[in-house]
Parts: sequence; C-alpha cells; structure tokens
Amino acid sequence: MKQYKVGLVGIGAVGTEMVKVLRQRNFPASEIRILATRERDEEVAGETFHVLEAKPEAFDGLDVVLFAGTEGSKGASKLFGWEAVRRGCVVIDNGDDFRMDDRVPLVIPEINGDALERHQGFIANPNCSTIITLMGIAPLHRRVPLKRLVAVTYQSVSGTGRSAIDELDQQVRAYAAGTHSPADATLTGSPRSAYPHQIAFNVLPQIGSPKKEMPGFTTEEAKMTFESRKILGCPDLKVASTCVRVPVFYAHSVAVHAEFSAPLTPEAAREILAQAEGVTVVDDLSASQYPMPLFTGGGDLVSVGRIRTDPSVENGLALFCCGDNIRKGAAQNAVQIAEEMIRRGLL
Amino acid sequence: MKQYKVGLVGIGAVGTEMVKVLRQRNFPASEIRILATRERDEEVAGETFHVLEAKPEAFDGLDVVLFAGTEGSKGASKLFGWEAVRRGCVVIDNGDDFRMDDRVPLVIPEINGDALERHQGFIANPNCSTIITLMGIAPLHRRVPLKRLVAVTYQSVSGTGRSAIDELDQQVRAYAAGTHSPADATLTGSPRSAYPHQIAFNVLPQIGSPKKEMPGFTTEEAKMTFESRKILGCPDLKVASTCVRVPVFYAHSVAVHAEFSAPLTPEAAREILAQAEGVTVVDDLSASQYPMPLFTGGGDLVSVGRIRTDPSVENGLALFCCGDNIRKGAAQNAVQIAEEMIRRGLL
Repeated sequence: MKQYKVGLVGIGAVGTEMVKVLRQRNFPASEIRILATRERDEEVAGETFHVLEAKPEAFDGLDVVLFAGTEGSKGASKLFGWEAVRRGCVVIDNGDDFRMDDRVPLVIPEINGDALERHQGFIANPNCSTIITLMGIAPLHRRVPLKRLVAVTYQSVSGTGRSAIDELDQQVRAYAAGTHSPADATLTGSPRSAYPHQIAFNVLPQIGSPKKEMPGFTTEEAKMTFESRKILGCPDLKVASTCVRVPVFYAHSVAVHAEFSAPLTPEAAREILAQAEGVTVVDDLSASQYPMPLFTGGGDLVSVGRIRTDPSVENGLALFCCGDNIRKGAAQNAVQIAEEMIRRGLL
Repeated sequence: MKQYKVGLVGIGAVGTEMVKVLRQRNFPASEIRILATRERDEEVAGETFHVLEAKPEAFDGLDVVLFAGTEGSKGASKLFGWEAVRRGCVVIDNGDDFRMDDRVPLVIPEINGDALERHQGFIANPNCSTIITLMGIAPLHRRVPLKRLVAVTYQSVSGTGRSAIDELDQQVRAYAAGTHSPADATLTGSPRSAYPHQIAFNVLPQIGSPKKEMPGFTTEEAKMTFESRKILGCPDLKVASTCVRVPVFYAHSVAVHAEFSAPLTPEAAREILAQAEGVTVVDDLSASQYPMPLFTGGGDLVSVGRIRTDPSVENGLALFCCGDNIRKGAAQNAVQIAEEMIRRGLL
C-alpha cells in the first residue's frame, strides 16, 4: 500500500486529535511532520515529535497537509495554504478562511465526497456544528429534498479550544473549592479569557462575532446557512440557526426542526439514518435513550434521536443530533477527506 | 388595605420561593398558613412556620391558596383543590393537573389577566418554559398575530426541584474532588436520582415523559403547544418545541424561531418588548450583551435579546428569552395572579 508524507499545522485541541485519529485509523503515513510557530520537541498524543517552524520550504516533499485551523494556528492556511499547493501538497484546511471559496470543495465524505473530484489541491473541512447537523439531515435530504432547516445548537467548550476547556474545568473547581452554592454560583476572580462571560452553570447565546452580511446573526450561525447550502448543493436552501455555548466539555448537540418537500415519517427517517454511513440512531424516549454529548464525546459516529413528526408545519420532522466536534466535527472529518481522496485515486 | 389569609401547599423549591415572593412584594397577607404532608415546625425562607397537615378542614378561613405543585406536593391540588374552593378559597395551582381544564383559567397576568374575570375559584399557573417563552412572544403577537412558534429550550435543574439542584451540585463537586479531567468527566458512584443520566457536563433532550397524544414529544413539549394556545386564545396556533435540560442551576432559556402573519422588523420588536410589562430587552450582540441564565436567575423580569429577522421564512423573527423558572416561571407568577385578582376586585 502506498505510504504518504503527512504534514500537520497547529497542535491545539484539533491538531492533537488529528495525530490520534491518523494513528487510530491506521492512516498510511510514512511521516507525520508537525509544523508550528517555532521549532521544538513536543509530545503530542503520546508521541514525541520534532516540531518544525512553519515556513514555505517546510512543506516540500509532503503529499498532504492538514491545517488544524484553530487557536494558535488560525490564519496559517492563509499564509501557507496555497504555497503548499504550489509545492505539490494537497491541503485539507479545518479553518474557515477558504470554505466559501469557489476553488475549494467543502466536504463531508459521507455526504459529498464526489466534490473532491473537482479539487484544485485545496479542500476545506466544514464547521463542526454544520458537519454534525448535516450528518443527521443529508441522508434524509437525499431521499426527500429538504426545504427549510432550523438548527438550534448546544455547543461544547472544546469547540473554542484548549483554553476554553481549561476555563470550564477551572471555573467548576473554583465553585467546588469556594463557599459557593447553587443560589450563588457566580464566580468572581476565576479565570475568564476564552469567553466574555462565565460559562460554568450558564449558557452563552453567542458563538463567533456579529456577521455583517446576516444582521443579528453570528459568524457561527452564518456558517450553518452558507456551508449547508454549499455542501448539499442547494444554493437557495432556507436555513436559520441559533448557536449557543453550553457548559459541556466535548461534543456538540443540535435540535433540528426541518421541513421537507414531501412527507417523511419518523419510521422511514429512522430506517434511512440507521443505514447511513457514520450515523447511529439512538432513539427510544420511553427508555430515556437519545443522543447526549457526555456519551458521544470521543466517538466516531454522529448519533441521532428524538426523531418525530413536527406537526406545526407541512412535512415537518424534528430530531436531535450529537457528535464529537473535535473528532467528526474537525480532526476525523479532515482525515476522512484524505482517505476518501486515496480511495478515489486523487492522492 | 384589605388583608388576606393565604394558604400555601408544599414547601419544596417553588413553595419556599412563594413565601419569599409574598414577602418581597409586600403581599397584603394577615396570615401565611403552610400545609404539607405532616404537622411540624419548619424554617421556610428565614421564618419559622408551624406547618399544618393538609386536610380538608385545614383550608377553612383562607382567602387564597397557592399550590406549589411540584416534588412532594405534586397531586395535592387534585386531592384538595376543589375542596378548598368549596370551602370558600380561591385556588391558584402551579401544578399541571388542571391547566387544560375548561373551568380553569390559565393565566400570565401581563398577557391574559382578563381570563381571571371568568374564574370559578380555581386558576392555574402555566408551565415555566411556556411562561418564559410567551413573555417574549405575546407582546409581539398582540401587534402582529403569530402564525408558528418553534421553541427550543435550555432548562435549568431547579425546574425539577431541590433534589436536582443538589444532584448537579454534588456531581460537580465529585468531579472536582476526584481524579477526573475534561476528557474523563463521566462520574461513577455519584448520586443520580433526579435524572436517568448524569447532568453535569451533559445535556438531556428529555423533560417529562413521552406524551401519548403527541407521538415522539415529551409532556413538557406538549405543554408548550397546548398551554400557549390556551393562554393566547389561539386554538389553532402552530407550535413545536424541543425541551432540553442543561447543567444550569436557575433560569430557563429559550431559542425562539417565530413566524408572524405580517412583517415585524427587529427594531419594531425591540421597541414593543422594551415597553412590555415584566420584560427587559438585553440585546447588543457586538458588546456581547444578551440574556443569560446565570444573570437572570433570582430576578423578576424575563430578558429578551438576539432579536433578528429570520430570513429563512416569510415574516420570520428569531429571539432568545431567559427567565427565572422558579420565580416568574412559577412562584412569582402565582403571586402575581393573586395580586391581579385583588386589582380586579375578584379577591
């Protein structure tokens, strides 16, 4: 089997997970070359790597480069992405700088792997909450075209990165260590840098910043709209979302109220989703079985449940999706893109 | 000013808050008589009460009786409610046993206080998440009739009662005391009785139990539909909801995607809500100002923000509401009903 030289830019929460996922999936890598802001030795996911400084010539000889695209490495694909393509690499970028670029396929392999056929060396990984939502919706849309999607999210702090994971952890520890009680859970003096407000025992209805082109919406909510349209190939799809951060460490959840162009029973939807690649149906309300982030984090599959007819609209269907935002929502999907390119003879 | 003899059945989280609210609002009470399963002396909200056993004759002489209707006192209004009415009391029931009864007005004073005029001695307090949602929607609906409501909730554990507040508190303390980390936040051996799954660092897309009449929906979600219709006087209103428990102690939040029968700009909606009784508009996304449960808990007002046009549907408007479920969502609304009856000369 052909072996590939794999580059990886950025070793925050997503970059670290990319190393794990490459190893867990036995990706045929003869080399994993980690590039970051400065040269050093560093342990990543249990292995010691000689990290190189990211600069144009550092990409020479690599077959495929994964840009983690969050935290410290944000903006790296803008600096080095197309340069790496010119030097012969295929770039898979988890960041959001090129997702809407016409030259760049935006790919969830289970949904639109065929878009890779038109690649120009640069492929984008969609946003985490968009991936998790579409994993539950796209298999249904293939059978009965989707008309409108309302997606309301419960997003974990790991989507913000390591600093936010630490922040929730430390806030909860400060609560337990102090004289706080449920009626007095507002922390003073505890760390607060990842978010403008305390996240422990709170929910924040803001992810990202205000999006000029969609007044009143955030950048995260705009991604749900524009990325869904591009991935599903439906430029006029009606999409609205409210994206909210919740005090959960790993895995995003999404409450979906969808409208289809023809009837789709919950039974049919359950059957379609049960056969969909990368999806597991967890749906028995009477036994309290449904998707939950605490039990989805760390896993590879997107779980879907609470599937029911939404009687408030014609051909309405509601469901609840849950997936690990760092894995399927980022690192795993990026590695799956590389695997899909190999499968298609594109790498 | 006339003074009233006030009865109170149940002293869980809601009953205790009822005592607080009666005192804070200087309700003209010459007596507060607490009734519970057995006679005893008990401190409630800083006062020592001689609690009497709830039995028919214990209601004699009372002008108005508040049934807390949750936890230990659940079912009490079924046992004693109409008996108390026969003995000359006006009953205000926070429980859910009589809300859909045609004899019983279901009242949020700021919205449908006029329904009290037709009372037959028994008034019901709506469900917490319904109250908080409608406080943000009803003022708009009065100007431009509502067509469809999609409400997706983030509900705090206090809605379940004291045992659930303790459970989240103890789970978080067990996390901090043990060898747990964000990647290993699943607790074993920690208390779990209020919910079928761990609530710390998790979200549970189930509140209540499966509702037979609305396949796939929970009782809590059905309340949002049927109670909203009754309160707004719109028996055909289209309503769908997903109700989710989150690891927050106090205050429920609701992401609303609404459709009106005519255009309603965010500016107009903001102006209407700014003048609505019991509502405060907190809406400046660029300054990270929006409703949040941690800063709404303990307060009297329902805060509304993230007001924006939902471009995915004709005359769509999205917003985010937040209110204290124990106060405005329960105890305070019940006391406000009594106040409104006094104001109307009905008590």
